[in-house]
Amino acid sequence: MGNIFSDRISDVPRSFIREILKVTSDRNIISFAGGLPNRKLFPVEQLKEACISLFDKDIEDALQYSTSEGDVSLRQWIASRYLQKQSISISPDDIIITSGSQQGLDIIGKTMINESDHIVMEEPGYLGAIQAFSLYRPTFHSVQLHDYGLDIDAFEKTLHSHNVKLCYTVPNFQNPSGITYTLENRKQIADILQGKNCMLIEDNPYGDLRFKGEPVDSFYKYIPDNTILLGSFSKTVVPAFRIGWIVAKGQLHEKLLIAKQASDLHTNYFSQKVLAEYLRTNNLDDHIKSIVAIYGAQRDAMVHAIEKYFPPEVQFTRPDGGMFLWATLPEGYSAMELFNLSIKENVAFVPGDPFYINQKNVNTFRLNYSCMDEQTIEKGIKILGSVIKRFVG
Amino acid sequence: MGNIFSDRISDVPRSFIREILKVTSDRNIISFAGGLPNRKLFPVEQLKEACISLFDKDIEDALQYSTSEGDVSLRQWIASRYLQKQSISISPDDIIITSGSQQGLDIIGKTMINESDHIVMEEPGYLGAIQAFSLYRPTFHSVQLHDYGLDIDAFEKTLHSHNVKLCYTVPNFQNPSGITYTLENRKQIADILQGKNCMLIEDNPYGDLRFKGEPVDSFYKYIPDNTILLGSFSKTVVPAFRIGWIVAKGQLHEKLLIAKQASDLHTNYFSQKVLAEYLRTNNLDDHIKSIVAIYGAQRDAMVHAIEKYFPPEVQFTRPDGGMFLWATLPEGYSAMELFNLSIKENVAFVPGDPFYINQKNVNTFRLNYSCMDEQTIEKGIKILGSVIKRFVG
Repeated sequence: MGNIFSDRISDVPRSFIREILKVTSDRNIISFAGGLPNRKLFPVEQLKEACISLFDKDIEDALQYSTSEGDVSLRQWIASRYLQKQSISISPDDIIITSGSQQGLDIIGKTMINESDHIVMEEPGYLGAIQAFSLYRPTFHSVQLHDYGLDIDAFEKTLHSHNVKLCYTVPNFQNPSGITYTLENRKQIADILQGKNCMLIEDNPYGDLRFKGEPVDSFYKYIPDNTILLGSFSKTVVPAFRIGWIVAKGQLHEKLLIAKQASDLHTNYFSQKVLAEYLRTNNLDDHIKSIVAIYGAQRDAMVHAIEKYFPPEVQFTRPDGGMFLWATLPEGYSAMELFNLSIKENVAFVPGDPFYINQKNVNTFRLNYSCMDEQTIEKGIKILGSVIKRFVG
Repeated sequence: MGNIFSDRISDVPRSFIREILKVTSDRNIISFAGGLPNRKLFPVEQLKEACISLFDKDIEDALQYSTSEGDVSLRQWIASRYLQKQSISISPDDIIITSGSQQGLDIIGKTMINESDHIVMEEPGYLGAIQAFSLYRPTFHSVQLHDYGLDIDAFEKTLHSHNVKLCYTVPNFQNPSGITYTLENRKQIADILQGKNCMLIEDNPYGDLRFKGEPVDSFYKYIPDNTILLGSFSKTVVPAFRIGWIVAKGQLHEKLLIAKQASDLHTNYFSQKVLAEYLRTNNLDDHIKSIVAIYGAQRDAMVHAIEKYFPPEVQFTRPDGGMFLWATLPEGYSAMELFNLSIKENVAFVPGDPFYINQKNVNTFRLNYSCMDEQTIEKGIKILGSVIKRFVG
């Protein structure tokens, strides 16, 4: 059989992370490679009650086909939370429930990206977004992330030199770096975008998982007409439901809805109703507090272990929330090579390569701390530290 | 704000069916317009038991992120059913669980269709497929459906004149027409495709809902290397779970899996596990028997009422299964105009227009019989018959 594939799919390589997760699924391995929330913290009993309560109510409706927009009570809950937590006023009518944030990225790509269109990505950037957008064959422009957010000079230059349509950001506890954009950085970005024919995606799956400091304003506060918001219940409730959302207004909302409908008609309605019932009968903030207490302690354990066991020439971020931190080896050392050494000692992480558009053998890597207790983190970082010392020494 | 949209989305109109369903949601209307399974037949108690049983077992796993391929026990169940019901041997490794069949269509489009690629569609054809594929901007070639299946001459000519990559079919109880391809027709189609660099999609959401006659062989039996199978639990269990599947081999399977992952990482895993538990502890065939008994009686009621109340110059199909039949007004009469008259008498249906690629004001329309009891069907068809008599008389 000859080539029956589209050009768009021929460009996309097999997922690097999938390959790594296969290697690291062995139970003897201490894996900092994952990106999973901690399953011990799932609100199992409360979800069971919500399920049973749904079966005792309007269950036939919850099992039938539904609208592409998604459950109205869930959209109302999301809108009122934006107002309460971030002081931004969103209409439930501007929200579309998606099959995870990942689908939000896909339908944005479908709706907005023509081949060769210019889009700005963070460097390092979320690999799921790189993958989703890649299928629509844009021209990517990477803008470097610093501890305070996007490199403003580079961002401004890129927008000046190219007709940029879309900028993708994860401004809170970014994946993979763990960094959070400062308010000043956000305002500078907003100033640059204001009035331009360019949309900024604020993807915010981790924003609620803050264990330090104060929340920073959403871009939506400053440039509502240029902002698309993406949200998710995967990190705060459970991932398996695949429930996220997208906020967009006017014609963009309408087009995204067509793309959503063509993609899967609508998101699993039964799980939307279970989730809405869970949110109605429980206080999500209480649940989030319990997650944040654990992740915060594990983050501290990882930071302290790195300070103790890594050689001082390895730099790393100190996230105020989320699930990841980001380490940088001295120039010229490949994190991929380091991975090949450390996996022999049964410790895994994700080398930085898949978080860059066009770079190989970078000197950065991602460490996840959400899924392991403090003792295991200390143990794994100690081993990794000794591997690094041999590697860079 | 200037145009920020992709060319692909700018081509796609608002869904006609959505507009019609808005009009027909009024409870006083007798609506033959829907395409929903009958909610009274959902296996509510059994699904509740499956849910509770899942919560009492390995629930953390069922709430976590999972693989893009989908739950292995569900894929094994599907593979063994293919063997048992259709005598075709499918490996569970060749199955990808999708977020409804609709997502199967989307990821096939994503994986295979370049702009202007030639694809064959049935005429009339399933509008969800037209919508999904439209976003990838192919050149559609419509081939007329007859009572026995595809028009073979037209099919052969189309394949001879164009480099056709993909043929989309719903060979059992087709939506919208209700017709089933004969074995002879399938063999002729298979002969034409054999050895060609062209894939046939056999979309089969209704195949299990047969109330008359014997099942006809799948295309897969004759041209396994040219066949992509799509299946769904939406019509046999519940639609809200959005669980369908796609069967494809080799490199195509691999590429589809990448497209699936980029689209939504994976299908709702909790619902996959609930469904697998339901299928493990219940006999789906017993449940299907209860659906088929009702749909068959309602189909008979509709056929008899049409024979009684429609003028003889209106032709219609007599389906052996599924949820729809298809009526044809005399030449020159627009079913859209008929709709505007009948809705005033509180009876709705779907005019044929959205089931054609490039035709307006066609003389055909779709009638759904799955959701109404026999008395209501008789009443509605009687009213519609009198409207038609005035319209064509």
